[in-house]
Amino acid sequence: MSKKLPDRNTDFSNWYTQVISRAGLADYGPVKGTMVIRPYGYEMWDRIKSVFDEMIKSTGHVNAYFPLFIPKSFLAREAEHVEGFAKECAVVTHTRLKSDHNEGVIVDPESKLEEEIIVRPTSETVIWSMYKKWIQSYRDLPILINQWANVVRWEMRTRLFLRTSEFLWQEGHTAHETKEEAQKETIDILNLYKTLAEKYLAIPVITGLKTDSEKFAGAEQTYCIEAMMGDKRALQAGTSHNLGQNFAKAFNVTFQTKDNKEELVWATSWGVSTRLVGAVILTHGDEKGLRLPPMIAPIQIVIIPISKNDEEKVLIKNYISIITKDLDKINIRYYVDWSENSPGFKFNDWEMKGVPIRFEIGPRDLEKNNLILARRDTGSKVALDISTLLNTIPEVLGKIQKGLFDQALDFRNANTFTVTSFEEFSDIIKKGGFIRCGWDGTNETEKLIKEKTKATIRCIPFDENPERLRCVFSDKPAKHEVIYARAY
Amino acid sequence: MSKKLPDRNTDFSNWYTQVISRAGLADYGPVKGTMVIRPYGYEMWDRIKSVFDEMIKSTGHVNAYFPLFIPKSFLAREAEHVEGFAKECAVVTHTRLKSDHNEGVIVDPESKLEEEIIVRPTSETVIWSMYKKWIQSYRDLPILINQWANVVRWEMRTRLFLRTSEFLWQEGHTAHETKEEAQKETIDILNLYKTLAEKYLAIPVITGLKTDSEKFAGAEQTYCIEAMMGDKRALQAGTSHNLGQNFAKAFNVTFQTKDNKEELVWATSWGVSTRLVGAVILTHGDEKGLRLPPMIAPIQIVIIPISKNDEEKVLIKNYISIITKDLDKINIRYYVDWSENSPGFKFNDWEMKGVPIRFEIGPRDLEKNNLILARRDTGSKVALDISTLLNTIPEVLGKIQKGLFDQALDFRNANTFTVTSFEEFSDIIKKGGFIRCGWDGTNETEKLIKEKTKATIRCIPFDENPERLRCVFSDKPAKHEVIYARAY
Repeated sequence: MSKKLPDRNTDFSNWYTQVISRAGLADYGPVKGTMVIRPYGYEMWDRIKSVFDEMIKSTGHVNAYFPLFIPKSFLAREAEHVEGFAKECAVVTHTRLKSDHNEGVIVDPESKLEEEIIVRPTSETVIWSMYKKWIQSYRDLPILINQWANVVRWEMRTRLFLRTSEFLWQEGHTAHETKEEAQKETIDILNLYKTLAEKYLAIPVITGLKTDSEKFAGAEQTYCIEAMMGDKRALQAGTSHNLGQNFAKAFNVTFQTKDNKEELVWATSWGVSTRLVGAVILTHGDEKGLRLPPMIAPIQIVIIPISKNDEEKVLIKNYISIITKDLDKINIRYYVDWSENSPGFKFNDWEMKGVPIRFEIGPRDLEKNNLILARRDTGSKVALDISTLLNTIPEVLGKIQKGLFDQALDFRNANTFTVTSFEEFSDIIKKGGFIRCGWDGTNETEKLIKEKTKATIRCIPFDENPERLRCVFSDKPAKHEVIYARAY
Repeated sequence: MSKKLPDRNTDFSNWYTQVISRAGLADYGPVKGTMVIRPYGYEMWDRIKSVFDEMIKSTGHVNAYFPLFIPKSFLAREAEHVEGFAKECAVVTHTRLKSDHNEGVIVDPESKLEEEIIVRPTSETVIWSMYKKWIQSYRDLPILINQWANVVRWEMRTRLFLRTSEFLWQEGHTAHETKEEAQKETIDILNLYKTLAEKYLAIPVITGLKTDSEKFAGAEQTYCIEAMMGDKRALQAGTSHNLGQNFAKAFNVTFQTKDNKEELVWATSWGVSTRLVGAVILTHGDEKGLRLPPMIAPIQIVIIPISKNDEEKVLIKNYISIITKDLDKINIRYYVDWSENSPGFKFNDWEMKGVPIRFEIGPRDLEKNNLILARRDTGSKVALDISTLLNTIPEVLGKIQKGLFDQALDFRNANTFTVTSFEEFSDIIKKGGFIRCGWDGTNETEKLIKEKTKATIRCIPFDENPERLRCVFSDKPAKHEVIYARAY
């Protein structure tokens, strides 16, 4: 535990892996690319889940659960969709094992399925096959369903939380009477994602539209929230898709309109995943480990008693019980670390775990009726009269939450550039950062830039202003102002 | 909706299916045996989840998440375990599809996996492969981990909520220093299950030990909660297993004891599933549909406005807003049904959905400052002064909760029998019910009784009293007093 982390500036990737391991967030599972989310990491996800679940319920959405297994033929019904997902599908072909004298256990060849089954990479197809049964008339619309589930995409290069063969997410799947209503839903959800990221995870995000080459396979438009990580690379943190009538077409889902016509249903889908836990680590972490935004921190305050003998220990225990009574009153999540480890060890350990506030309490604090409050975000320490806790603690937690957001925003601003030439563009991309510049709107340009620099168009931001801009690559008049970056 | 349900007494199975469909609880998915849990059914599960999640957290357990995929070889490490699960495994063999000119999409034969992957039927093996990494010394113990997850068991005969190829559940997996501690955990959890069933679901359960032939594959002992359904059949509603050192042996998980020895770790595992939703339907349902215990009902009160014209509608709307203000104060989950349907249709519809209380509010109620309260459990109707709601509503909900429990308990008692001969035994089993009687403790007797009557030993109840009893089949001195029944 005392061993230093790899240098964040020169070895960000190893730093990330080590933080996850030492903070006890996750592990790789036995099957290649699968992830074990350990209790501390899971509680972060669980808090993100609760926050977003409340957001969508308060906007009229309900939860349901659809099957993990999808008939192979379903995937193929929507041409772009199968194109996008076929290459990374886990396929179930048999339903039984049997014992074998040589090998122990083998797959029973007699249990071969007539039609192979796909483990869901996303649930549009299975859900629209059900909507087909549930939707007859405009009275059945809108359907505003979400599910919390696991999905599987067979990935070659995996990284914990960011890209694993199985991950946890929520996927919303809505059905509407009109194109306009579907578009409104798509954007409303994108705004909820922005709130989730900025207000709760303290991660500033850019909202915008994906280009055709980056959009969801089967969507008309994909909107996204894009964030800058601590190594200046971009992370797509959530997507909201306007699916048009594509899946209604594929599954022949029509409805009777108010004026008695038959029309195809309009659809959206949208998701955020355990990737958000990775985003928190990558955005806020520092050379000492994690730094967690108070609103989703499993533990907001860790209390470290510092005593030299049993007598002192008893006194401090009583003193702490006074303090925790106040913390209970304001619903603070705290933990008192009575373990046998040294104070120094505990400081490092809880800093690694990113707990926003540390209380240090020794015999001298008792005399003065105070405690030492150390902030994880700034490292600052102050003595605090314990009679002020009810007021100061919410205030300090609020400052930390805001401080982390501001710091991330400053970092993003400092590393977002405009350029005048493709040479400059390439230089900056190599060093890292976002580039806001003109794009001529062609696939070719996008593709060539990716080949030459590994940068992709992260999005066409809602606040784009392409007038008078020229394409950074072709020098043609820009069709859009876009954001380029290397991405996770 | 107006069509009557199948007769519960003569056609229980169809009655069950129809209630699920008409109350909007679930549907079959496109892959045989899979289940779609619709929003109303999912909310029931979500409430059960919240209740139990709080119970286990308050007893020191934490949540985590382990992978869906298990290497085939892991399953075979524990001999009894693989024997129990091999015959119903979904096996992933490939990881890619490709397009084909004839068929549309086919499995890419080049993506064949070296080692096949099992979709978890339960997670002991993958979890103990991780515990191997996490446990070195007694300081790492106990581990008290739970996960909420989906699991897959390939079933031939499926029934919604009771037996589906995929289902949702929680599975606890704990690791301990001593045999005694593991045994205590096993029983503590069983008692939580009993509380969950009796206090929240209003389902009386019998706690006891499973016989060897009915125990979990890989356990030393399996304990269970068993309930009687409305057709007098038994339903296993939850199980808690003392795994001894079986999985520690299989995965070579040892720890350094306090006195510096190396010992195998002791284990438990335990689970309840979406089957509990089925148990609620089967226990409390009646000829009008569902009857939900208020503590887990998604909607506790449905309010039906009854107006003849728009003028009345406005007055009633204002009146209802006064009522719902009070309901909000006491955190009641209510729904006001303003849909265009007739009051009679709405009554039937919400009775089908099992909402515990219905308010009927017409113009005359406004004059009298009252409303009509109809109880779903008894069908009784009373006029209620709306100034009394804050007190009466919690009281009535409490009475309904208790009433459902008492009714189920009376039913179980009335259908639990003792017998003096195997002839009598066979007669009763045919008609339905629990039989408490002696068992000689042999597998042969258990097996022969099952063959002859389809009855199985549901459990050896904790309050057994085998003294002076004789085996109902062999007439030998009874080793145990047991409960026999036909089961789901």
